[in-house]
Amino acid sequence: MQNRRDFLRNSGMGIAAAATLPLIGQATVVSNSISAAEVADLPMGFAGFSFLRFDLDKSIAMMKRLGVTNLSVKEFHLPLNSSQETIDGIKKKLADAGINMYTIGVIYMKSKEAVDQAFEYARKCGVNMIVGVPNPELLAYTEEKVKATNIKMAIHNHGPEDKLYPSPKDVYDRIKDMDPRMGLCIDIGHTFRAGVLPEKAVVDYKDRLFDLHIKDVTAMAKDAKVIEIGRGAINFPAFVKALRKIKYSGISSIEYEKDMNDPLAGMAESVGYFRGILKG
Amino acid sequence: MQNRRDFLRNSGMGIAAAATLPLIGQATVVSNSISAAEVADLPMGFAGFSFLRFDLDKSIAMMKRLGVTNLSVKEFHLPLNSSQETIDGIKKKLADAGINMYTIGVIYMKSKEAVDQAFEYARKCGVNMIVGVPNPELLAYTEEKVKATNIKMAIHNHGPEDKLYPSPKDVYDRIKDMDPRMGLCIDIGHTFRAGVLPEKAVVDYKDRLFDLHIKDVTAMAKDAKVIEIGRGAINFPAFVKALRKIKYSGISSIEYEKDMNDPLAGMAESVGYFRGILKG
Repeated sequence: MQNRRDFLRNSGMGIAAAATLPLIGQATVVSNSISAAEVADLPMGFAGFSFLRFDLDKSIAMMKRLGVTNLSVKEFHLPLNSSQETIDGIKKKLADAGINMYTIGVIYMKSKEAVDQAFEYARKCGVNMIVGVPNPELLAYTEEKVKATNIKMAIHNHGPEDKLYPSPKDVYDRIKDMDPRMGLCIDIGHTFRAGVLPEKAVVDYKDRLFDLHIKDVTAMAKDAKVIEIGRGAINFPAFVKALRKIKYSGISSIEYEKDMNDPLAGMAESVGYFRGILKG
Repeated sequence: MQNRRDFLRNSGMGIAAAATLPLIGQATVVSNSISAAEVADLPMGFAGFSFLRFDLDKSIAMMKRLGVTNLSVKEFHLPLNSSQETIDGIKKKLADAGINMYTIGVIYMKSKEAVDQAFEYARKCGVNMIVGVPNPELLAYTEEKVKATNIKMAIHNHGPEDKLYPSPKDVYDRIKDMDPRMGLCIDIGHTFRAGVLPEKAVVDYKDRLFDLHIKDVTAMAKDAKVIEIGRGAINFPAFVKALRKIKYSGISSIEYEKDMNDPLAGMAESVGYFRGILKG
């Protein structure tokens, strides 16, 4: 996959790519077997929190309709204390639907026991990364667990009102000298509300950027509201350009938090807009 | 509006535009009073046929949710034989919702009486353009009506299976020497299925291009299926580039024909993708 992505990126989706891959938006193509999502250089996903009001079956149906295949599974769909049998059942359900559980979280960790539980859960889930918020005093212990398990920790920032990690810098400054498997899940909405440009943050912290929660917000202000991607104040062309510049190889997961009782239209508009920016 | 559009287009949405207009995707902007749709250089709309299964109130609600404000009103929402009073009521309902009835149609005309009815309907509606399909033997009579009323006729093509106007060329060749108010509504999906690239058609027939029905299809083949914009085979970056090259000043109306009983998600994805292409 990485080779194909690099090839597409480097080719600028031009003649060379079209000659090799039959469906890169060349207008004379006559097959539609590869979806836009599958050939994108920056694959999209969903942060499980987007589906807060929906059970897993309904969430899967929504993802299938949107053609998005990567999911960061949230605990309300799969409790942290689940048995291996339960986890295997959910994994099979996702796999049968063509959905890749690429990580878990966001998981909050306020004690060593919670850290232990998160890593055990990740091991049982078979994922190589946790998106989490370990309290700062637990970072050294978290690093020990990373070393012991080879499971990465992507720490999620939460905006100007957050006591722990308002912006990506608050994460980065604490983990930059730790094991390289300690890193960031940058939430670009919270980042922007904290006064930081996402297109700058992903470059500044590229060596520790493991995951992304993408969204749009109405303004660079603490009290800004979430909104469909493309309608807000975040500069997505600049953001995507920065991701390509740093050769970001992770997932860009939409965390959609508007209209949470009826989010499908807003999710679809967001997915469409991001795909348009990728292609435009 | 035209001046602002030209300004945005010419500025490349750069520093100069940002200094004058506060919300052109510049990341530090702190107001969201102007929506993405409103500042687009190529304004979007909907072809009324998209809402075949919905009454006008539900259609309006869907358009408001999607932030799209231009509508080509179809007769199932406002019958061709409506009284002026009925028409005025519908116009007020649309205006109250912030929706601009910018044209009517598609209207099929197989007799002189049908042509007369269409122009009378347009006059009552207060629109300056009809999107229609007059039979070829009625084109001379249609031209007379155009001259008499100063209402433009945008003739809609319908794809390879159509006996009258399969592709834009079949329209253009018949009207190119007629009154300049005789022109085209190019349906890019039917055009593509007919083996013609939309990005070429809009350039070739730019002097008579009045309206657009935009959509995506799975392949350049007669039996291709409609699909969410961005998932199909039409090259939207090339298409938008061509529209900017010819300085297209009309509306780009989505005609969404997939999942017609439950189209909102697909419409939203299509709107988002087109906006992303415009911004990308």
